Amino acid sequence: MREVVVLGVGMHPFGRHPDKGLADLAHVACWKALKDANVPAKDVQVAYLANSIGGLITGQEGIRAQTVLGPNGFGGIPMVNVENACASASTAFRGVWLEIASGLYDVGLAIGVEKMHLDDRSRTISALISISQIELSKLGMQFAGEAAMRCKRYMRRYGGTKEDLALVAVKNSYNGSLNPYAFHRKPYTLEEVLNSPLIADPLHLFMTSSIADGAAAAILCARDAVKRYETKRPVIVAGCALMSGRFREADPLDTDVESTITLTAKEAYRQAGMEPKDIDVAEVHDAMSPIELVSTEDLGFCGKGEAIRYLKEGRTKITGDIPINTSGGLCSRGHPVGATGIAQIAEIVWQLRGEAGDRQVKDALVGMCEDSGGVLVNGDNAAFTNVILKR
Amino acid sequence: MREVVVLGVGMHPFGRHPDKGLADLAHVACWKALKDANVPAKDVQVAYLANSIGGLITGQEGIRAQTVLGPNGFGGIPMVNVENACASASTAFRGVWLEIASGLYDVGLAIGVEKMHLDDRSRTISALISISQIELSKLGMQFAGEAAMRCKRYMRRYGGTKEDLALVAVKNSYNGSLNPYAFHRKPYTLEEVLNSPLIADPLHLFMTSSIADGAAAAILCARDAVKRYETKRPVIVAGCALMSGRFREADPLDTDVESTITLTAKEAYRQAGMEPKDIDVAEVHDAMSPIELVSTEDLGFCGKGEAIRYLKEGRTKITGDIPINTSGGLCSRGHPVGATGIAQIAEIVWQLRGEAGDRQVKDALVGMCEDSGGVLVNGDNAAFTNVILKR
Repeated sequence: MREVVVLGVGMHPFGRHPDKGLADLAHVACWKALKDANVPAKDVQVAYLANSIGGLITGQEGIRAQTVLGPNGFGGIPMVNVENACASASTAFRGVWLEIASGLYDVGLAIGVEKMHLDDRSRTISALISISQIELSKLGMQFAGEAAMRCKRYMRRYGGTKEDLALVAVKNSYNGSLNPYAFHRKPYTLEEVLNSPLIADPLHLFMTSSIADGAAAAILCARDAVKRYETKRPVIVAGCALMSGRFREADPLDTDVESTITLTAKEAYRQAGMEPKDIDVAEVHDAMSPIELVSTEDLGFCGKGEAIRYLKEGRTKITGDIPINTSGGLCSRGHPVGATGIAQIAEIVWQLRGEAGDRQVKDALVGMCEDSGGVLVNGDNAAFTNVILKR
Repeated sequence: MREVVVLGVGMHPFGRHPDKGLADLAHVACWKALKDANVPAKDVQVAYLANSIGGLITGQEGIRAQTVLGPNGFGGIPMVNVENACASASTAFRGVWLEIASGLYDVGLAIGVEKMHLDDRSRTISALISISQIELSKLGMQFAGEAAMRCKRYMRRYGGTKEDLALVAVKNSYNGSLNPYAFHRKPYTLEEVLNSPLIADPLHLFMTSSIADGAAAAILCARDAVKRYETKRPVIVAGCALMSGRFREADPLDTDVESTITLTAKEAYRQAGMEPKDIDVAEVHDAMSPIELVSTEDLGFCGKGEAIRYLKEGRTKITGDIPINTSGGLCSRGHPVGATGIAQIAEIVWQLRGEAGDRQVKDALVGMCEDSGGVLVNGDNAAFTNVILKR
């Protein structure tokens, strides 16, 4: 396996873009990424496109890569449409990584794009339901309810109050206020978070990720082909792991069984030859913001039950020793499902290149991106990714 | 890149299976493939699932691999959902091939599954429309119309009558009558084909592929790991190519520009170190049966304009020197979109192992599978695959 680097990243700002279709959103992200990489489009030899709910939203159920990338100037190369719920874009990133790592191609494009805002909001909600196990959904098990159950289990096992959980949103909304690509750029106080509408106790509105339109792209390149391009310092893909959930009778929060987030991270750590203390900055999948606490522990950044203390001590802030979700995370940046994974990668690339502006983490050498897609309550029907990047 | 083999294949018969969901169809195919390979399920380290229109048919838009394979006993492994219209299953096959060829894993499952029959037939038709470019579809450009145009262009350039084109369906319906996995097992006479309802001149009903439910699976393995299993003679993946279309102002049937079918085949031939004369048997994507003639030429089995002569001389029959669609092809076997590519691979594996029963081609050493997905009329929004297998 050859070493693979990220040469460039690009994003279409996440938000509400009613006048733009998938191809328009993708256009901005992929051409920004090409420019950032200083790679001509004609050099792209393979492309993976992630999109999760476009069939139900746009009516284009098949060949989305071809219909999105074709009008943007790509053709005559292998294109793969991939989907893995909230881990779709990171799965596309992994696909291109593998195409290059295997030696098959030297330069590839990974792109995630999602359009969610429609005049008919019920269509968006019903599309979202369709990326968790629909049989469970029909019984009322939805993302917010499932996350709320996980939060309650967490509090029962490790303690902590609703106020403690809400502090994640306070931290991340501040980070998001510094991110020009974020949907929501207002820093919230604890009071504002707790006064926002209750969604599923203990989750309030400002603790949940937003429906959003957006796109994010990355140009990957074989390390031994980088010299062809005058380019900024490339960022190395040190680990890239994908896993599906295992059926479990009990939630790992109730037991000492390792979560699939942990198992996926272990695989990425193994590939990178690293351990948790080597990570300088991380983007984690906080579709509901308190879940960041579970990820912080499951990724090994602190011990079980310690994440609230870490949060309150400011250790996961931009200025802390393990900054988490410097981008604002899914709640502030917004969560266009099929684009999120590569937005995380863009944030970490910017951090490692020292280009994160007001969000810059000092001396960041190694970063991690973690995604979980699907409903995690029994762990079975979900996809998990973990990407470690280093400069 | 390591050499990869197919250890086993399995299918759920294609047809009308109103009482079965995606997981039920997949169950039969993947467990048959495991049994055929003599590989225990726990040894499967990675899985790719192809499904094209399940979001619109079943309501499960995301994480289809996890919801289909989870209940069938798979979990805790990387799972990727891939889509590439009619080339979806061959794209999944290629994905698993790459996972193993790269050295990342030793044993993987590729599965394609599709459910198309619904009480409300209009839903199936509208789902099918959604896997070609929907803007073109809304203008009335649909699969049958596009293929009819290609047939007319073919006849204008190279000659041939509607009767000549219908002979493909006569040949393939005979082949399909010998295939226990085929949906339609009645051999048609020329008269029956031409008396079937006209769909889009020159295409009659029996020259078009059938909406069908079905699944097909393959177990792939690194060649150097085959010794772990007591297994039948493995079939080697000698070439495995994927391509998207390029925008073209003119159809290659009107010009001398090489088609993307040709370019994709050339890549597979290059990987295999082979040329057309090395192929003993081929499954080609005859979603509308006369398109087999175009593929026969584009794959290099005969010169341009020669395919009708080859057909009439019986050279593409099971007993000919280049037998094509011994399975019955898409019109007789049926065309559950996301399963077809691996059904082709199953047919070729059976042929190369000498297990094709009454359809057996004598001394078949090398076979090819060709798929095209999407609307090919301008070549842009389509996916093309080519897999060469040898024993």
